[in-house]
Order: sequence, then C-alpha cells, then structure tokens
Amino acid sequence: MALEDRVVELAAEIPPLDEAVAERARSRHLGLTKPPFSLGRLEELGARLAGLAGECPPPVPESPAVVVCAGDHGVLDRGVSPWPREVTAAMVGNFCGGGAAVNAIAKTVGARVSVLDVGVAGELERHPLLRAAKARRGTGDLSRGPAMSREEAARAVMAGSGVTEELIESGGVDLLVTGDMGIGNTTPAAALISAFTGRPPEETTGRGTGIDEATLKLKVNVVAEALELHAPDPDDPLGVLAQIGGLEHAAIVGVILTGAVYGIPVILDGVVSDSAALVARALAPHSAGYVIAGHRSAEPGARISLRSLDLPPLLDLDMRLGEGTGGLLAVPLVQAAARTLAEMATLEEIGIG
Amino acid sequence: MALEDRVVELAAEIPPLDEAVAERARSRHLGLTKPPFSLGRLEELGARLAGLAGECPPPVPESPAVVVCAGDHGVLDRGVSPWPREVTAAMVGNFCGGGAAVNAIAKTVGARVSVLDVGVAGELERHPLLRAAKARRGTGDLSRGPAMSREEAARAVMAGSGVTEELIESGGVDLLVTGDMGIGNTTPAAALISAFTGRPPEETTGRGTGIDEATLKLKVNVVAEALELHAPDPDDPLGVLAQIGGLEHAAIVGVILTGAVYGIPVILDGVVSDSAALVARALAPHSAGYVIAGHRSAEPGARISLRSLDLPPLLDLDMRLGEGTGGLLAVPLVQAAARTLAEMATLEEIGIG
Repeated sequence: MALEDRVVELAAEIPPLDEAVAERARSRHLGLTKPPFSLGRLEELGARLAGLAGECPPPVPESPAVVVCAGDHGVLDRGVSPWPREVTAAMVGNFCGGGAAVNAIAKTVGARVSVLDVGVAGELERHPLLRAAKARRGTGDLSRGPAMSREEAARAVMAGSGVTEELIESGGVDLLVTGDMGIGNTTPAAALISAFTGRPPEETTGRGTGIDEATLKLKVNVVAEALELHAPDPDDPLGVLAQIGGLEHAAIVGVILTGAVYGIPVILDGVVSDSAALVARALAPHSAGYVIAGHRSAEPGARISLRSLDLPPLLDLDMRLGEGTGGLLAVPLVQAAARTLAEMATLEEIGIG
Repeated sequence: MALEDRVVELAAEIPPLDEAVAERARSRHLGLTKPPFSLGRLEELGARLAGLAGECPPPVPESPAVVVCAGDHGVLDRGVSPWPREVTAAMVGNFCGGGAAVNAIAKTVGARVSVLDVGVAGELERHPLLRAAKARRGTGDLSRGPAMSREEAARAVMAGSGVTEELIESGGVDLLVTGDMGIGNTTPAAALISAFTGRPPEETTGRGTGIDEATLKLKVNVVAEALELHAPDPDDPLGVLAQIGGLEHAAIVGVILTGAVYGIPVILDGVVSDSAALVARALAPHSAGYVIAGHRSAEPGARISLRSLDLPPLLDLDMRLGEGTGGLLAVPLVQAAARTLAEMATLEEIGIG
C-alpha cells in the first residue's frame, strides 16, 4: 500500500469517544465521597478518560512514555533562530545521555523517554533510547518551496506511528506524551496553525527560544511568504504538512493518531505538538477526543491552537522549552483524574447521604 | 514553658531564605541545556527551593507527606453548611480506610497520608494513619463568643508542629502538603482572611462545599458578626486564631512553622490552608518564604490570601475539596523544579555556546 494510503487508513480507524461511558463517569462522580464537582476540572478529565477508554471507571495509567520527535529545518537558512542547526543533534545526544530537562521531568513523573530521529540532518550515534527512522535529512526551506514531498510527510507520520505502536504493544505504555526537538521548528508550527485556523502569521508566530524584535519580524514575514507561496488547503492535511510542516510535526501526528487507535490518551506538550494536533484533527476528526492539552506554552500559537481544538490546558506555567517537558508535568493530573474515579469510596459506602 | 511561649519560640526559630543561594540557582539555570528562562515558573520555584534549603542545587524531595488536620466547628449551629457535623468523623474514617480523594491523589504522587485529629467532636477509632491530639472537641460558635481559648489555640498549633516534627525526624519526610477536614471550616477561614487582609466578608466568604444563595448570604452575615464581636487584632495572631479560627487552621499553622524551621518546603492546599498561612506569616514573617501555593481553590478567599502572601498558585483547576488534594497535585511540579536544577547537563558539557 502507498504510504499516503496507510496514513488515511490509520486515521479512519479512530472511533469517536463513547459519550455514554463518559456520562456514566459523570454520574459516578456525584456519588463519591466529596461535594459534587469539588474536584473541578479533574472530574471532566476523568469523564473523558472513561469515554476514550470505553470503560468506567477508566484504567489508571501506570506506564507513561514521552516520544520526543526530532528533525531539522531548511527554513533555518532564513535566520529565524539564533541557534545553529547542530544543536538539534547535540540535544538528541543529551536526551540519550539523560542530561536534558525532559529526562529530569520524565524521571519525576515515572515516564520513559523514547527519542525518534525522523529527520535530523546529521548522523547520530546509535543508542537504546533512540529509534532511527529518518524520513529525510531535514526539510527544505518552506518559504521557497515545499518542506518535503507528500511521500516523505507520510513516511514521517508512519515513523511516529511505528514507534508508538511498539511502545504500546511491546512496552505496555498506556499514556503518551508528545515531545519535539528541532532548531527552527516553531516557524513551521506557526505556518501550520495559520493554515488550519485561518489566523494571520502576526498572531501565530512567537519568539520560540527567545528571539529579538527584529528576528521576530523576519520570522513573521517568512511564515507569511510560505503561506502565500503554497496557499495551503486545510482540506488536504497531508499536502499542508508537506508544503509548510516539519518532519517532527508529521511524526507527532502519527503518535496522536496511533494513541487514539489504541484508545490511549495523548498529552500534548507545546506549540509544535499543538500544531500537529490540528493536522491530526484535519485527518481524523475523532482524534481530538483522545488528546489532552498538558499545558499552555508561552508561544502565542499555542493559545490559538488549543482554542481551536477546544482543549483547555491543564497547566499554564509560562514554559516554552518543548521536548515534552510541559506535557510530562500533566501526567500525574491525568493519573489522578483516573484514580479518583477508580478508587474513591461512595457516600453510601461510608454511610453519608 | 507555657504553650503560648512555645509557639512564639517556634516562630522565632525560622531563618529568612538565603537570597544568595537563590541567586546562585538563577545563574545556574542560565547555563543549563535549554534556552534561558524556557522552563518558565519552574525556574523561579527552583531558585526558591535552593534559597529555603540553603543549597544549590536544592535537594530533590523524595518523601512527600500530606498532613490532613481535622476539627469540628461550633459555628455549624448557625447553618453555614448543609452537611452535618458527623461527616467530619466519617471522612476521617474514610481517609484511614483509603477511600477519599486525598488517598487516591497521594498514591498518584507517591505521598504518604497522615491524619491529625486536633479537634473532631466525636470519638474516633484508633488507626495507624491517625494521630490523636485533640486540643478540644470542636470549637465554640465564633459568631457568639471565642472559638477557643488562647491556650487551646496554642495547643492546636503545637499538635500540628508535633506531627510534622515526627514525620520529618522519624519518617524522613522532605516535602510537606497541608490538608484540612472539618465541616464548616470555610467560615473561620473567611473570618481569618478578612482579619489579616482587611477585606470585607462579602469578598472573603465563598460557597464552600457548594451552598445556595440564601446560605451564602447567611454565611457572610455570620462572618461579619464574628468580626464585629471580636474586633480581631492582626498584631496578635494567636489571639485572632482563638477568637475566630478553627482547630485545624491552628494545626496547619504548626505544620507550616515546623516545616520552615527544618528548611522544608510546605505546599498549601486550599482556602483553609491559605488562611493558616496568613496566621503563620503574622507569627513569623519569614515563614512565607517556605510556603508554596499548590493551587488556587475556587473559593474567593483563596485568591485574596495568595495575593496578600505574594504566592502565585502553580495550579488552577477549579478545585475546592480540601483534604490536601490540590496541594498534592503540585508535588511533582516542586520535585521537577528541584530535579531540573540538580540533574540537567550544562551547555558547556554538551559543547554548545
């Protein structure tokens, strides 16, 4: 089967959330030993976990994993970031060595770290945490031509899907967090967010790692040029990914779709993940039901994406690092939402009400 | 020594945060493998952890505990809550049995649960998780007389201090979360918040477990009557506690002061804990530096207290359950703030910059 057809098939496998089961969870909450609704947003989160698992109470996730998808970006030649391309590979080495923020935070919440090289430009040393699945060596400059071919975009989606399937099937992973690494990758994220929400580049483009005013202006122009050059059609999500996306963005689409196929919640990290969730929804409208906004990144495109996806973020800590760091911090909140539904006594059991 | 003198002595033992060490943590963050400031609020939290521990990097807390302080309230006779007094004791039984929200969430974040009976009206069965230290059997009605004597208030503070000291000294606890249980206890919390912030009862009084409009109006009036009757003097914090406080509020003051004496961070839960932190600060101005706002409760007094304490909450999930539930959810955030400082590689180590 052509790679593109495999993506379409994957997307088609995702069932809608089971609303009847979610409703059972809401009823169950009313009888637990607490005032009604006093767990606030954890209650609705628990109902969604029940709906996506098709079980009430939902299973309590015990084996979370973050999939950090890494790739490089041709658009870096336009000067959209002060960091050189080589930092992507250096940071992949840092993830494997355990010295990055994602490692420290994953350890804190008991999550395993899996790194996917879906398009880093340079050669990477082999490592047990690293899965090599380059769909190509960095994208082309999206402001001057397509970032990649449709076939490459599909291959990157399926690379994300493959690592996710393996984590679930062989690794027993039951809760996913998306992560990203790629110097320059907030530029394609902004372009994707503009393409899928219709909002102008001035609103979707942010400072990424912390660029100055002049670089931000340039970055906004680069995104605007890319949108003008390609006139992306949101009804052709794979085409949009190929024109103005990134390899790690595509891989995260694969993580989301595959988590959803297995009925497993997928926690989004920052703006790169948010932009991928917009692509995933365009490919598979039901996928949005399986996605949880771990936090709201400080990037302006994050707010726009999460509103469009109708996903209120669980955390808002002014973080903008990527790697999966903000998403990982939401893991205990998701676990707590499931565990309260699963393990709390009822008012009747303790003789009240 | 008189009990009241012991409280004063405890408060006097708390040193100020070591600002030089906090500053070292801020510098350290700039050299770690991430863009400067990209961990957002975790970075300042890490600096505070360093300052309060007097070490950079700060120790990573591995043994968190929630201390759930339970008491009853004479003011319940005024009809400020729809739940009967017996629910306090029933919920203490539920905590010991492992069926409450606090148990499910503590399990999620790896925290132990310790329950302190500092003033439940009825008899409670002995249980390994329960420490019996009644300072009296429920308070008097604060709208018609003092809630308790100064001696009883001091005894309740020292009960909270005692259980905390034991957790730290014998249990190796290195991170504290305050919790509360007491039907009617948001009424004294509102009164305390008004007394220490000067804001009127209309602003500090909320719906607690979820009362209707008429009951809320009554509750505001009850708080106003108490303030008029006692004219509490914020410069006499123990006197204020005795006049309009609660036994669990006083015990939480003891938890905060004792955590601070040991240089251990204390995560506040909801509005009852917030009101206790105001008392603690009045007794010991340096104590506020050791306190972390785990979340912002949906109770209006929480926002007022946290502003007054200059503590931005880590979470804001519309929770209003108490028990320590919201505070516990912030445990991984505190651990992550310490661990990133302690374990991340530097840019120099990986050959960047």
